[in-house]
Parts: sequence; structure tokens; C-alpha cells
Amino acid sequence: MLKLTFLGTSSGVPTIRRNVTALALHSTMNRDWWLVDCGEATQHQLQRIALTVHDLAGICITHIHGDHSYGLPGLLASASMTGRKKPLILVAPAGVKAWLDATMLHTELFLTFDIIHIDVAGQDVVHRQQGLQIERIPLSHRVPSFGFKFSFEKTTWKVDSEALRARGVAPGPAWGQLQHGKDVQLDDGSVLVAAEFRAEHSERAVVVIGGDNDQPPLLAEACAGADVLVHEATYTEAVLQKVGPGPQHSSVERITRFAALAEVPNLVLTHFSPRYDNPEGMAEVHAEARQHYSRNLFLARDFDTYELNDGVLAKLPPAPRSK
Amino acid sequence: MLKLTFLGTSSGVPTIRRNVTALALHSTMNRDWWLVDCGEATQHQLQRIALTVHDLAGICITHIHGDHSYGLPGLLASASMTGRKKPLILVAPAGVKAWLDATMLHTELFLTFDIIHIDVAGQDVVHRQQGLQIERIPLSHRVPSFGFKFSFEKTTWKVDSEALRARGVAPGPAWGQLQHGKDVQLDDGSVLVAAEFRAEHSERAVVVIGGDNDQPPLLAEACAGADVLVHEATYTEAVLQKVGPGPQHSSVERITRFAALAEVPNLVLTHFSPRYDNPEGMAEVHAEARQHYSRNLFLARDFDTYELNDGVLAKLPPAPRSK
Repeated sequence: MLKLTFLGTSSGVPTIRRNVTALALHSTMNRDWWLVDCGEATQHQLQRIALTVHDLAGICITHIHGDHSYGLPGLLASASMTGRKKPLILVAPAGVKAWLDATMLHTELFLTFDIIHIDVAGQDVVHRQQGLQIERIPLSHRVPSFGFKFSFEKTTWKVDSEALRARGVAPGPAWGQLQHGKDVQLDDGSVLVAAEFRAEHSERAVVVIGGDNDQPPLLAEACAGADVLVHEATYTEAVLQKVGPGPQHSSVERITRFAALAEVPNLVLTHFSPRYDNPEGMAEVHAEARQHYSRNLFLARDFDTYELNDGVLAKLPPAPRSK
Repeated sequence: MLKLTFLGTSSGVPTIRRNVTALALHSTMNRDWWLVDCGEATQHQLQRIALTVHDLAGICITHIHGDHSYGLPGLLASASMTGRKKPLILVAPAGVKAWLDATMLHTELFLTFDIIHIDVAGQDVVHRQQGLQIERIPLSHRVPSFGFKFSFEKTTWKVDSEALRARGVAPGPAWGQLQHGKDVQLDDGSVLVAAEFRAEHSERAVVVIGGDNDQPPLLAEACAGADVLVHEATYTEAVLQKVGPGPQHSSVERITRFAALAEVPNLVLTHFSPRYDNPEGMAEVHAEARQHYSRNLFLARDFDTYELNDGVLAKLPPAPRSK
């Protein structure tokens, strides 16, 4: 029902294998997709997967730091150069919008589409449309930082197959008409009323995506009933102790302890310090995470795609690169 | 004596094989190197070669367009995060400096080193140091655009080996002392005066690098006596005719005609429209170039490194990637 594709999983600076932060969310209901954060070279990462900037519905920026935002001007410029007309929603701090305005002014960037800016600080529900609601959650970091809660809802009508079979109606065109809400007259002249033979069936998928944040419990309310939490785990606890509280990031221990307590069923850790970008480093992160969290756990890598179905998150096999 | 490494050779938008514009110049005299233009993801390209941002002496930006400048904030941020202290020279339009200031303000980017900004519009000679002079040449584009002429000079002292042999002095420590300017007393008591047995030997390498430009003859004076010209060839002539003069770029025909007339001995074309990023496209570009220019010609690709020695430019075999 919902897919997450990681486009950048490194904290602060890119490494040879990991770009700075960006995450694509795409439901299986339509071609629209959303981008959370847009570090430098996000447009380059997009060239390696099947999503296009033309189907991008909106971008949510968690906070103003460059490793989460410096890919924005290039991505918007390229979308213009390749002919985008559709307006783009930008949920972001006012500083990001001010920076984008300054960029357009000083570098003569003329966009071929409108940017609909929604100040992330202004309201809890930052976007709502049929089948999707996005809320933002204030977090704790060196600059104002926010998490985003994406609630997808897919509503379908299903016919009551048992009742139809009991009534002597075999699967066929009549089933389709009833499903679409049309009453059906049978050969014997009797009428099946659609309202009696179909019922609404709704599926929900709730994903919480944290921005940079040193206080995971701020996400407690948002995580109640959520299917997936994606959160930074910049350092192991020992390194966080050594680095000190200045950077205001979470350790693996802190976020996994929280996720266990909040009973989050699926957890994806990301935004790792470049010091862990080697097999030993990731093994260390994994070991620390497993000490505190025993449910469905993933350490994100660039180009990982995860699919959520019936509440279970699974990593998909690598897709053949599209270009 | 001088190397050029292309970090981006695509016009406007990156392709899967070519990034947007950036070019590294490094002399073989020291570890310092210079960057001309800094498109998005230049720092990512640098991770694949042996040059580091810590040895970067300065950056020259030809004009304000994003495909030549959007990599600047990320590169500077990463240099800060990895501890650079040495000031960095930035030769750039005032608009680029204003944009960088706005970026630092709005995204809370704090650099750990000073930026020494030199307004490219302000003077002909934008930088001069022992062994290197950089001049800028105003060009013709939709926004003010400049080319850069790098004149490297390497001065060494050589001993007069013939004269020394005639004097009965075999190669050995005495030769080294004379080369360093020290007089030498021989076993027979006689003295060899350094000034008589050594001479200054100087090598020059002059490279002209164009920014976006639809009037190659503006580089005529700069190219007189230059060893290498690097210039955009965004379109073939037929496509330029179709696109019209609006974008103010050069065609392959126009730049190669100019280079032939100006007797440029080595020519590297770059900044190709993405439409040519396939074997047929590059063959078309090559064929058009060869109609007008018969000397040493190259069509740049990302990560190509060229070395200039004794006036001849040669492409080096691909280096093993350093990381």
C-alpha cells in the first residue's frame, strides 16, 4: 500500500556510498509521491530510480540545515528545464522559503511552476487531501526541527460475495455493477440493491518520519498506532557521550529504547554519522539497536525500498535501475 | 606541468553519466588546486578522485546560473565539517557572493574558514601569486559571464653540464651545490662561481577556460599564445539554429571555427546539451568539430584528466578511484 525509498542516509556530509538526507514516500494508489528532505544531489539520486520529478506532489523539509535542503534549488531548476507546470507543495520552515527566494533572485532562477509554501511552524495539519493527511510534530534540535506523520487511507468498495452466492448470483458483470454502486435487475425480474450487497473497506498506513532530534519521546503521541517510524540514529551511545550534547542528535540506544516503549512495530534507522559507513560500523549500530528493540528493524541504505502491507514493512529486492 | 580534471560536462541538468559544470586545475608544482565552477554535487564528484577540498586554493565562478554554482554551499559546508581552517579565495560575480551570504544566514551555515571574495567584474587580473596569474575575460551570455586565463610559470635552476664537464667536474655533490646557488671550492683550491655555472629555466603553461558564451571571438586576445582552450559547445550548429539565439550558447561549429582561426593548439570541448549524451550524439559533435578544427581536439567526459607538457595536451589513462 505504501513504499519508502531512501535517497540519502548519511548525516552531515555525503560518503561514497551514502548521500545526505532525502526520503521518497509513494502510495500504490496513484503516481503521486512525496519527498521528505532534499539534501544536495537528491536530483542525481532520482535519476537512478523510477520516480520522476513530474509526479512529485510535494516536498516536506524538516529543518533548515544544508544536508537536508541544499538539493532544493537544483531539483526545482531541473524540473523547470524539463517542463514541469504543475504547482508543487513545499512544507518547510520560513527560513527555507526565504533562502529559496534569495536563490531565485541572485541566481536568476525562473521556475515554470508555482511553489505553494506552507510554513511548517504554522499549524499541526500541514496538508490534507483525499486519502492523505500530513501532520507535523515539533522536535528538539539546534534549530527548529519537525517530524512528519503521513496517514494514508485507501477506501475501496467490496461486494459481499457470500451473500451474492447465497442469493444464487455467480461472479460476473453483476458483481462489478454492485461494486460500483449500481442496483442490478436479475433475469427473474428481482432487483439487487447495491447498498445491501457492498461495503466500504478501508486500509490505513501511518508512517512517522523524524527530523534531526535529540528527544525521541516528543514523537510518543504521533507514534501511537503508527505502522512505521523512520528516525535518525546519528551516533552509537558511546560516541554520543564523547561528542557531547551540542549537536543535539539521537543515539541508536535512545531511539530504539523509545521505539520499544512506544510499541512501534516497524523501525527504520537512518542519518548515520559517516564514521559508521563500513561493515564494522553498521554491525556496531545493529548490535546496539538489537539490545533495546526486538521488533521489525532496518538500518536504511541508499536506494533501499521498503513496502508496507497489512502493517508489515518489508525490504524489496533491488529494482533494476531504470536509466 | 599542469593537469585538468573534468568534474562535470553537462549543460543545464545532470545526466546519469555527466554532472553539471566543474573543472579542477592542478599544477604539478605543489598540492594547491583551483576549481572553475561548482555545479551541484561537485563535492560528490571530488570524493571519487584524489584531490581534497583541503588543498583547494580557490574557486572561480564564471556566472551565476545554478548549473555552475549550486554545489558551492555544500562543498563549503563539508569543508567546514571536516575541519578546514585555511582561507579560500572565491572569484565570482557579486550575485554569487550575495547568494552565499543569504545561504549562510537562512540555513545557519557557519564556516570555519574565511572566504576572500574577489568580484570578477572588478578587475582584469583577479589573482596573482608566485608562479600563477589569473585573468578574467568578459564574455557574452544571458547574464554577465566570464572566462578565466590561468598562466602558470615554473622556474627552476639548471647547471650547465657541458661547461662543468669541460672544467673536469663530474656529476656529484658539487653540481647540486651550484644548482642551489652556492659557490664550490675544488680540491685544487680553485672556486667555481655558481652564477657562471647555472641558468634560470622557466616553463609556462597557459590555459583559457570559457564560461557560457555565444561569442567565441571575445577570447581572441586571451587565446593568443595560450596552450589550451576549454570552451562550451552546448549544441551542434543545426540544433542551435533550431533553438534560436535565446540561450546564448556556442555551437560546436562556432567554437571550433574560432579555435582554428586563433591557432589554439589544444582544444577541449565541454558543457554538452544532455541530448548528445549517447554514442551517436557525441559522434555527431566530433564530426562537426573535425570539419573546422584539425589540431589536438578532445570532447571532455566526467573524470577525464588531461596533462599539459611542453605545449602538448594528452589524456591520462583513468586513475584508480581513490576511495
